[in-house]
Amino acid sequence: MFKDKSLLLSGRKWGIVMLSDVEIAQNAEIWPIDRVAERAGLTPDEFEPYGRDKAKITLQKKRARGKLVLVTAISPTPAGEGKSTVTVGLADAMNQAGVKTMVALREPSMGPVMGLKGGATGGGMAQVIPMADINLHFTGDFHALTSAHNTLAALIDNSLQQGNPLQLNPRRIVWKRVLDVNDRALRHINIGLGGMTSGIPRESGFDITVASELMAILTLSQDLMDLRTRIERIVIGYTYDNEPVTVAQLGVAGALTVMLKDAIKPNLVQTLEHTPALIHGGPFANIAQGTNSVLATDTALQLADFTITEAGFGADLGGEKFMDIKIPILGQAPDVVVLVATVRALKYNGGQSRENLQNPDLKALQAGLKNLARHLQAMQRYGKPVLVAINRFVTDTDEEVALIQQFAAQHGSQAYETNVWSQGGQGALKLAQAVQEAADNEQNFQPLYQADDAFETKLQKIVTEIYGGRGYELAPKAQQQLVTFKAHGWDKMPVVMAKTQYSFSDDAKQLGAPEDFIIHIRELELKNGAGFIVALTGNVLTMPGLPEVPAANRIDIDAHGRITGLD
Amino acid sequence: MFKDKSLLLSGRKWGIVMLSDVEIAQNAEIWPIDRVAERAGLTPDEFEPYGRDKAKITLQKKRARGKLVLVTAISPTPAGEGKSTVTVGLADAMNQAGVKTMVALREPSMGPVMGLKGGATGGGMAQVIPMADINLHFTGDFHALTSAHNTLAALIDNSLQQGNPLQLNPRRIVWKRVLDVNDRALRHINIGLGGMTSGIPRESGFDITVASELMAILTLSQDLMDLRTRIERIVIGYTYDNEPVTVAQLGVAGALTVMLKDAIKPNLVQTLEHTPALIHGGPFANIAQGTNSVLATDTALQLADFTITEAGFGADLGGEKFMDIKIPILGQAPDVVVLVATVRALKYNGGQSRENLQNPDLKALQAGLKNLARHLQAMQRYGKPVLVAINRFVTDTDEEVALIQQFAAQHGSQAYETNVWSQGGQGALKLAQAVQEAADNEQNFQPLYQADDAFETKLQKIVTEIYGGRGYELAPKAQQQLVTFKAHGWDKMPVVMAKTQYSFSDDAKQLGAPEDFIIHIRELELKNGAGFIVALTGNVLTMPGLPEVPAANRIDIDAHGRITGLD
Repeated sequence: MFKDKSLLLSGRKWGIVMLSDVEIAQNAEIWPIDRVAERAGLTPDEFEPYGRDKAKITLQKKRARGKLVLVTAISPTPAGEGKSTVTVGLADAMNQAGVKTMVALREPSMGPVMGLKGGATGGGMAQVIPMADINLHFTGDFHALTSAHNTLAALIDNSLQQGNPLQLNPRRIVWKRVLDVNDRALRHINIGLGGMTSGIPRESGFDITVASELMAILTLSQDLMDLRTRIERIVIGYTYDNEPVTVAQLGVAGALTVMLKDAIKPNLVQTLEHTPALIHGGPFANIAQGTNSVLATDTALQLADFTITEAGFGADLGGEKFMDIKIPILGQAPDVVVLVATVRALKYNGGQSRENLQNPDLKALQAGLKNLARHLQAMQRYGKPVLVAINRFVTDTDEEVALIQQFAAQHGSQAYETNVWSQGGQGALKLAQAVQEAADNEQNFQPLYQADDAFETKLQKIVTEIYGGRGYELAPKAQQQLVTFKAHGWDKMPVVMAKTQYSFSDDAKQLGAPEDFIIHIRELELKNGAGFIVALTGNVLTMPGLPEVPAANRIDIDAHGRITGLD
Repeated sequence: MFKDKSLLLSGRKWGIVMLSDVEIAQNAEIWPIDRVAERAGLTPDEFEPYGRDKAKITLQKKRARGKLVLVTAISPTPAGEGKSTVTVGLADAMNQAGVKTMVALREPSMGPVMGLKGGATGGGMAQVIPMADINLHFTGDFHALTSAHNTLAALIDNSLQQGNPLQLNPRRIVWKRVLDVNDRALRHINIGLGGMTSGIPRESGFDITVASELMAILTLSQDLMDLRTRIERIVIGYTYDNEPVTVAQLGVAGALTVMLKDAIKPNLVQTLEHTPALIHGGPFANIAQGTNSVLATDTALQLADFTITEAGFGADLGGEKFMDIKIPILGQAPDVVVLVATVRALKYNGGQSRENLQNPDLKALQAGLKNLARHLQAMQRYGKPVLVAINRFVTDTDEEVALIQQFAAQHGSQAYETNVWSQGGQGALKLAQAVQEAADNEQNFQPLYQADDAFETKLQKIVTEIYGGRGYELAPKAQQQLVTFKAHGWDKMPVVMAKTQYSFSDDAKQLGAPEDFIIHIRELELKNGAGFIVALTGNVLTMPGLPEVPAANRIDIDAHGRITGLD
């Protein structure tokens, strides 16, 4: 797997990885993308190379679909619990076991790469490559979204400038601008200053690109014309008479679709073990559906016997949205759900401080297991088998691992230790075996709600059946919005809950499995093109900031193109 | 050349093109990029495909350089005079004549594509393809520049937010933000609003991406490390003590270079006649050097016996900057200069109104020829042969063409009729023959000024020897800036004149060849990374706006991916 085998061995000998992620990725043997495409079963006219190690896919003929595995997680620590790493490692393990498997992941956002962390493509021996490219511009999908989003914004302001034929109220324009940069100074801005020829002065702001409704739309579209129709439906603002104004009325859906004609095609890369990987789309997991594109998952399902995919944050957020928003469009439920847990996240949920998570602590672990139990219950209610993957860290003790396994068995599941970070696919062979067996089930998928359920019913079911709370409360603003949404017939769309990832409740400090809580919904947001309503609890940051010492200060490149600091 | 030959024939029969540019481009037979690369003499490890019809080039071994031909033009009408079209057609003609020739052009900016016009890749039968891709995201170079530029901006505002360790004066930050969108509402904005956690309030704005100093830098860099060094030199603002602050002090040149690691590689595409074409970089021709990258031109020179390249606007702007800014870095002067003239632009310069340019008018033409004479003189002073290409329109009469030819012969040149729009390379065979012959000269290149000439000397020479004016005047602000620049030793860099393209003078209404004028320099701008000083005359718009009915309202796509409205 490595150009220089000794690099790998030095790690393996100690059971741990001695190299940084970017060192592993840059020293890995990478297959030409043609070979990966061939392994995936693509004909030469079904992919277009982007560089020697990336490609975009357009299937030319329909195939029968294989089985689907969703990887989700318990409530995480702020450092994350290695969901992508397990997803990659599990797919590698399945292939090692002779099962034709592909992995389908989200694309990383470049803003955070330059901010807090270097990369988001798995870790250790379970990574997708080319790591640097995927973390930077990749095949340009996010840039195309940024361009299309901002072109629409410019067209809206131009419409104001050119006599405002649509009678848009400048104070009620809801379409902001976006950049794939962590730039807090652009959150709240005044635009259109500088006189008559430079626009109409008004308040506005920038979100990060992954928060764009176009991102949600692109990743929920079934084809180019579905994309165009959804773009037409986007509500960009309201008239002086409070009537909604759509992109269709502005007459530019065609141009925006043209700008996204390549971004809609799924991207093919590979894992360190040359498992074909589709990486496509990256919608936020709080204000959007938080999972890779419908088209990429559909493509993987058609190409492989097993597709391993993941959803953002914990099962309460990404898992629920995967089941209730993506599945109805994809038209296929997961055959198995894998819930990633770590000893340290369970201890964190059991009340242990972040500084002491590496110390053995069966008491905190025991206390934290109620978090696992509730996530298990939430996923089990959809009717399909749920397995637990314990993503093992070197500091975990065997007793701690055994305790989780015992607990899972008592809660209608089975827990499997995985060591994919240090061992790659080799570290998840047992889980792979269990996934294969569990996938062979005849159980029916049980959706949480029906499409024509009332908005209130959907909300109540999410809060009670997924979060384990008592109910919800709409703030006056949200109540008023709901009246408007009902008047326009928008209330029958699925709900996207924008909630903290650290708690089942809307209070990030309520770890573990809080009881008897109420979810407070401050405000609603219409995403008419994406086809859902966002219910905002608390403040959701849609434009991150940079830390005191940004990752950009560590990243560098030499004359040979070797990159450092990208971890 | 066409998939459906009847499409071509219907045009050829009438001597004119019956199809729109995008119809021609989408119906053209396109070679797989591997075949184009092979024709260009690239080994398989010297290019990376981007899709099936685009590639990025990294030469692995040095070759001897061929000859260089610069295509420039007389003062244009607002519609443009077909300089890119002639450049493409001439290269096709050279190849038809059996001379191994490549073309090196700038990349179009997407903002204007969605605004006033659909495309900028030549026209009629003399185009580069894939036309839609080149006009949209292409290989992502502009997006990489936008990202790197805005990441730097975010890092600057973050430095202010995090205690301002560099003591930057928020009112003296000169690094703005950019988008490749025509968005007048972003010209003047207030950022950092919304309280303590969302930045420091200050005035700022957005330019269009092609106006970014990073664009000028990327296209003047000789390699990745030169790029990094230039980025380090960028002055982003001044301290409270008026000391300049550079990117080096911010410590992020490495990260920005990483973001541009692929953008620096020249892009390979083809003309309709499969001539290998390098399209790379697109700096403004007023506030920057206005020509494609040094690396792309160098690459073409090494691959072909003849490289045909162009420079933006007229010879007074793009031509002068090519000679005085690009050539010293490239290290090779053009062997021949081709000056594109049209009958209608000459009539326009002779006082005819825009509405009547298609009517025969020998008197206006005669009057306008003084514009041609002055451009001829300006280019001839560099010592190399200058030929005139008459880009013929169907409304031009034979008498008009003959008059230009007679005039050129009287002014030390020769004029050749070209019909590349309707005939492709076939329409420029005589010009191709003349270029070949003229290139066989031993004349020395005579630079306009020396690197260590004083700033004032450089300015004076540009105004008198190129524009034919009497001299220049520095406004008080510019005088004051020059004192500062001298104190920092910045005054020895070349001058980039930001001037109207419609006149030799700084008054767009003074057509033809005005006499005895003074160039008024309002303000200077330091581009320390790019390595030049911009001298601003009048107002230069660095962020265009959209028209009343933008091109975006006409552009559309169907379920088969066929694009309309992109002309």
